[in-house]
Amino acid sequence: MAPHPAAPHAPQAEREAMRRAVDLAARGLGATSPNPVVGCVILDRAGHTVGEGWHQRAGGPHAEVHALAEAGEDARGGTALVTLEPCDHTGRTGPCSQALIAAGIARVVYAVADPDPGAAGGARALAAAGIDVECGLLGDEAAAGNAAWLTAVRLHRPYVTWKYAATLDGRTAAADGSSRWITSEEARADVHRLRAESDAVLVGSGTVRADDPHLAVRGVPGAVQPLRVALDTEAAVVRPGARILDGAAPTLIAVAQDADTAALDGVADLLRLPRAAENAPASGTAASGHAATGDGATGDGAGRGIALPALLSALYEREVRSVLLEGGATVAGAFVRAGLVDRVIGYLAPVLLGAGPPALGGAGISTLAQALRLSVSDTARLGPDLRITAVGRPAPTAATATEEF
Amino acid sequence: MAPHPAAPHAPQAEREAMRRAVDLAARGLGATSPNPVVGCVILDRAGHTVGEGWHQRAGGPHAEVHALAEAGEDARGGTALVTLEPCDHTGRTGPCSQALIAAGIARVVYAVADPDPGAAGGARALAAAGIDVECGLLGDEAAAGNAAWLTAVRLHRPYVTWKYAATLDGRTAAADGSSRWITSEEARADVHRLRAESDAVLVGSGTVRADDPHLAVRGVPGAVQPLRVALDTEAAVVRPGARILDGAAPTLIAVAQDADTAALDGVADLLRLPRAAENAPASGTAASGHAATGDGATGDGAGRGIALPALLSALYEREVRSVLLEGGATVAGAFVRAGLVDRVIGYLAPVLLGAGPPALGGAGISTLAQALRLSVSDTARLGPDLRITAVGRPAPTAATATEEF
Repeated sequence: MAPHPAAPHAPQAEREAMRRAVDLAARGLGATSPNPVVGCVILDRAGHTVGEGWHQRAGGPHAEVHALAEAGEDARGGTALVTLEPCDHTGRTGPCSQALIAAGIARVVYAVADPDPGAAGGARALAAAGIDVECGLLGDEAAAGNAAWLTAVRLHRPYVTWKYAATLDGRTAAADGSSRWITSEEARADVHRLRAESDAVLVGSGTVRADDPHLAVRGVPGAVQPLRVALDTEAAVVRPGARILDGAAPTLIAVAQDADTAALDGVADLLRLPRAAENAPASGTAASGHAATGDGATGDGAGRGIALPALLSALYEREVRSVLLEGGATVAGAFVRAGLVDRVIGYLAPVLLGAGPPALGGAGISTLAQALRLSVSDTARLGPDLRITAVGRPAPTAATATEEF
Repeated sequence: MAPHPAAPHAPQAEREAMRRAVDLAARGLGATSPNPVVGCVILDRAGHTVGEGWHQRAGGPHAEVHALAEAGEDARGGTALVTLEPCDHTGRTGPCSQALIAAGIARVVYAVADPDPGAAGGARALAAAGIDVECGLLGDEAAAGNAAWLTAVRLHRPYVTWKYAATLDGRTAAADGSSRWITSEEARADVHRLRAESDAVLVGSGTVRADDPHLAVRGVPGAVQPLRVALDTEAAVVRPGARILDGAAPTLIAVAQDADTAALDGVADLLRLPRAAENAPASGTAASGHAATGDGATGDGAGRGIALPALLSALYEREVRSVLLEGGATVAGAFVRAGLVDRVIGYLAPVLLGAGPPALGGAGISTLAQALRLSVSDTARLGPDLRITAVGRPAPTAATATEEF
């Protein structure tokens, strides 16, 4: 794209500034919902950074406002690099487009267009005010940083990450159930960072029964605690005194509409949800969009599990834009089966067991052609362990769906 | 260490040359047994590389001879960097110590001392001839490159690598048995490189029955074919026409001494071995050093499996210094149980199945404290897949053995 004569334009400086803005945006992960994470860097006429900001929490100032405040008069005639199209609407804060115009910014480069119809239009407003506007710089990186929010806005459900910790041979515990600890302290600390970046953390009743997990964030300064969610279809597992019910973070117990919740009334916030359809597939593809949570398979009784799409819709209505599935294998399998896993993060310890429960079960996949194929987006060493991140591939077209799934 | 006044000494140049020598040595992997891999670089008086060589195949010239030949008169007064202590004995070739002395080399730096009593003494001979000798430069790297040979010489058995290919959730096939292909073409090509670096490739009878594998190297120019070994305790699975019996590579069928081998006589080379001890542990530690091959568990009959230490000893006597275990889960489990796995290479595809056979079974580990804990030594991306290499930790002392295994 040719430089616009009306504005200073230093391609290398702008690229570096946008990369910095993407990094800044990530600092807001877990604290901005239902808003996206956004980072902003202001360059003066000479291309020097004079202001930086990021959206720190829902209801607080947008990234642009922080960056403009830091830049002050140096913003005049300068360039704003923003990871997301500046908003043009008055919500809990004023429109960023007007703030940029008022500050005398000459050029705005944003990475990703705002897909939210309520917030879009900022680029148009800026251009109408005579500002040079460009879109797309580091668009892929910025979109990856906002994957949860972008997915949530598009699908009207939270972005779902399944996290597991296992041995190299895929076991999450030994044959006798011992699992403390398969992964290292470094890996377990990273899980707390992951929780802090998530709006909600979710487990099934099997995990509640086996581990009495706490699920709150520890050791991450300034973290916003996620909503803790336990799937307890029959309201038969979570009981007063469970660690998940302490005051460290808010908690929701998801139960079937017809469950007997007498033991939980007044003890926990309940989310009453429909059960999965009677004809939810016992095996096969995720085409139905419905799946049992698998509670039946874990011994909770014979009832059908909660309809996962209804669960995610209810969480979305409560402004949850990202959910971290922390187990167990059956709940994760139900989400895989329903086609509702967007990202997988595996913590793999260089340990061999040769026996013990597998990381994933009940996904309804019986042959390789139905396997869920992902793309590795990141690998990292955490102490002795490995962290592998894989994300969903673009949805296959009808013609190739059979081959891919 | 202070520079020796009698020889040129350029630490940085020597370090770089040794690194190059380590890389050169690796080119011989799979072709030099029962010899080690060795690389050599000759620097002239000014520190410039004037000769390079590596041991290319058993019976051929040693690395030093190749490098000296390339250096010619430029070797005089120069420095030789060698990954292993130069030999001082006359085997199929003359002693390298004499060749270095005759070429007028002033200084010899080697990375790792030769543990083989038959070949050692080269350093002493060089020093006696007035050559400046130093040991240990990049010793760890060079030892890692020669891990198979060094382990084999020390333990009088081949170095054992277990290789597997699995999904992220640790499955080697789908529930219906379909497994072609979980991993990518790039990963499968890498397995052929791994085979080419190995002296022998080993599978159990279950894999022979299920897959009729070929096990020869394809697509690696100049590769020396490994010995193909099938464990068929009762001589009940391998039959004339099996792909493993074709002429592409030598093949050995390991059978119990008392097995009825009538169907294989004259068809395949047999290795008759004792069965594992009657009291081989059904579970528990690898302390006995014996283990069933697990053939019984895979439906071959009720007999006890072959004693794996006897198998490895027999292979060692046949000059096999490295063995690649290619499956299946039961054979790998038996080796893990016997404490006979030195390295694990996992090819992990970013695929989820949630059902299907696990990568490893029958390792005799029932609780986490007994798990085999390894160290990740390398990770790599191969197309869409990951390759994870993990090696054994230093042998635990008697006091900690119970905790570690």
